[in-house]
Amino acid sequence: MFKKSIKKKLLSFALVSTIAVGGVAGSLSAPEAEAKSIPNKGKAKNVIFMIPDGYSTSYATNYRWYKGEETVLDSMLVGMQRTYSANSKVTDSAAAGTAMATGVKTNNGMISTSPDGKDLETVLEAAEKNGKSSGLVATSTITHATPAVFASHVASRADEAEIAPQLLDNDVDVILGGGKNYFPETLLNDAKKDGYKYVSNKNELKNTKKTNKLIGLFADEGMAPELDRDETNQPSLADMTKSALDVLKRDKNGFFLMVEGSQIDWAGHDNDAAWAMKDSEAFEDAVAEAVKFAKKDGNTLVVVTGDHDTGGMSVGGYGKGDANPEILRNVTATGDYMANELNKKRSNVKKVVKKYTSLDLTNDEANRIKLAENPSMEINKVISERALVGWTSTGHTGTDVPLYAYGPGSDLFAGLHENTDLPVMIAKAMKVKFKPGK
Amino acid sequence: MFKKSIKKKLLSFALVSTIAVGGVAGSLSAPEAEAKSIPNKGKAKNVIFMIPDGYSTSYATNYRWYKGEETVLDSMLVGMQRTYSANSKVTDSAAAGTAMATGVKTNNGMISTSPDGKDLETVLEAAEKNGKSSGLVATSTITHATPAVFASHVASRADEAEIAPQLLDNDVDVILGGGKNYFPETLLNDAKKDGYKYVSNKNELKNTKKTNKLIGLFADEGMAPELDRDETNQPSLADMTKSALDVLKRDKNGFFLMVEGSQIDWAGHDNDAAWAMKDSEAFEDAVAEAVKFAKKDGNTLVVVTGDHDTGGMSVGGYGKGDANPEILRNVTATGDYMANELNKKRSNVKKVVKKYTSLDLTNDEANRIKLAENPSMEINKVISERALVGWTSTGHTGTDVPLYAYGPGSDLFAGLHENTDLPVMIAKAMKVKFKPGK
Repeated sequence: MFKKSIKKKLLSFALVSTIAVGGVAGSLSAPEAEAKSIPNKGKAKNVIFMIPDGYSTSYATNYRWYKGEETVLDSMLVGMQRTYSANSKVTDSAAAGTAMATGVKTNNGMISTSPDGKDLETVLEAAEKNGKSSGLVATSTITHATPAVFASHVASRADEAEIAPQLLDNDVDVILGGGKNYFPETLLNDAKKDGYKYVSNKNELKNTKKTNKLIGLFADEGMAPELDRDETNQPSLADMTKSALDVLKRDKNGFFLMVEGSQIDWAGHDNDAAWAMKDSEAFEDAVAEAVKFAKKDGNTLVVVTGDHDTGGMSVGGYGKGDANPEILRNVTATGDYMANELNKKRSNVKKVVKKYTSLDLTNDEANRIKLAENPSMEINKVISERALVGWTSTGHTGTDVPLYAYGPGSDLFAGLHENTDLPVMIAKAMKVKFKPGK
Repeated sequence: MFKKSIKKKLLSFALVSTIAVGGVAGSLSAPEAEAKSIPNKGKAKNVIFMIPDGYSTSYATNYRWYKGEETVLDSMLVGMQRTYSANSKVTDSAAAGTAMATGVKTNNGMISTSPDGKDLETVLEAAEKNGKSSGLVATSTITHATPAVFASHVASRADEAEIAPQLLDNDVDVILGGGKNYFPETLLNDAKKDGYKYVSNKNELKNTKKTNKLIGLFADEGMAPELDRDETNQPSLADMTKSALDVLKRDKNGFFLMVEGSQIDWAGHDNDAAWAMKDSEAFEDAVAEAVKFAKKDGNTLVVVTGDHDTGGMSVGGYGKGDANPEILRNVTATGDYMANELNKKRSNVKKVVKKYTSLDLTNDEANRIKLAENPSMEINKVISERALVGWTSTGHTGTDVPLYAYGPGSDLFAGLHENTDLPVMIAKAMKVKFKPGK
């Protein structure tokens, strides 16, 4: 169902140019029809909270065109949420994550501590207190802001070396992502003594036999962008999600799992539209794994929402009345990767860009890249102009973002919310005691 | 409740810098609490369909900061909708309006005709067939694309002279907006013979005594932007909405009324952030009128949604991690208006901008405006940079837009929809027979 074949993509894409006749029942996608089979009310034993970092409405719309058909998330839309932090209308991932983990708005940069430095209980910690297992999965370092906020408390997100031992002290049962550099050998040895199985590549992860605790670190710093990923060695976000669920489902008391699609945000900062779309695809594959599990299990709530927009992305732009995100399907490398392939004089720019994008650059475009201070960024600009994907920033922006939910308790999420409402509603769905600001 | 005093605005705005503690119940705004008192299921005798032209999520977020507190729409959010047309991923108002009036996607520029030229029945026409009254209200010419699609059928939106007689032939009972130029005296005389009362200024509109048919034309072309409106002569959108309801509520069989906030889109095309916010405020005031009526009536469904985004607006931008839309409250004229106040050498640019915005321009900003090919657009750029409101285009963009609903039948609108679903759901709520493509 969630498998993507180019043929299928092109086929459903062609539908746009025909007359689409509306109808309430007729417009339901297959995933939505399926979603109806599980009640949206009642208690959730397990919660899978999935965060596509930087993913706003325009990412969702562009990604749907990129995919060429409705996405798994489309049928799960229930509302939107407000992302601002305690000290800015434009949040960073630390403050947004803290809001979504603790129910309290804090200042940008802070990890589950209040503006005045008080540690704030997280919904993961509350779930653990109630005897549930917990897990964190990300494609960044696992000590990066978004995963960090769920199980550590530090004044600054930059303290990744301080965050790593806290994740283990906090007894997070499954830890999967990048960030080996923040887990020195002594720390990993202690973890193994505490019962953690340690893995460091795709095969080891796949062959993990029954264990109740698992730590997998697949890169020194962040993992590779999905476009550049070494598929034989590095697991995908969907692979990690599946492995995390295989461990966590062993707990009869249930679990709380957070899964982050970390690099959609990084792509947004680089205005790299192809990277953003490819990592959105990897994220959707992970959501499909989660929904598959939830459908089979029947007692699992899946909640999905971005923490903020990155880049002020738009669908179309540049004064043109159209959008072409589908050409991004032909892009097979990030702008960074392509820039690294340029020779010293950048005389091979047309060849390199053609190889990884199928685009024939005009002389003007090629010259812009040759002369640019930042050739990687200029490649991304040219590709975005071709795809008619607009950007207003290389930073975050403060628009409300879509909120998706599936499974028991998903009825709670309808409408417009504060990001601080999310952990409260998640705890309510799990019937776990949780008081923000504790 | 919906009254805006600057004092109140500033007060609630200050809350951002304090710690906001989340809570499912605690986060409900007063309008939402009120909304709960009317059931969201069941039959709607009347429907008020309100379209803020060009209004996407970023407009909603920026406008909330501009207002300084939650908006009437916030508590009505139920879903989102897809805006693309039959021939483009970025729609114009004609094709989007046609989709929302007829349930059929057509090509950009076409008014309730299919791409191959067939007339398409509209939900307004279906309501009339079922014995209901109907009305159209807009701040553009009433023959502009969005109002036109509900009660006329022409191949090109430019044919406003052809649209005007069709609105009357179609027996639209209330017609309020701009566009005198498209209603020659002979046509207006015929209308009067058919029982229409004709008014042309605010006072006449206010003093309209009992009538079943009303046509009010308050400008030769579009009405004034809310920022520049002559309040003694021109009615506001809320005034027109109230007057329309006063006429239409006389029909015991119910009514279908469409109200458009036309100029949010025009502001977006000009990247005029202050105009966009002020016309969003005028639109919200009209929504407040509609909701007040619906609450009192109990049998009225209010549906609100933009037809597309205009300008690719963002909340923040320019690589800065903040947003300042609240400074737009001090802007009292459109960029167009200010540009007209400049002398030939534009030497008074600092004085003019200071007078209408309270901003002290830097020399660099003043020079940019002096040298600009389009001084109005450059003024808007400077103000947007100060307010940190980003733009990717002077055209439309294709992002999904928020969908709001209140009253009986509003439950149908939850989730993600095609724009073509809207008239089908509206007809379903009214229990009116309606088959898209007829």
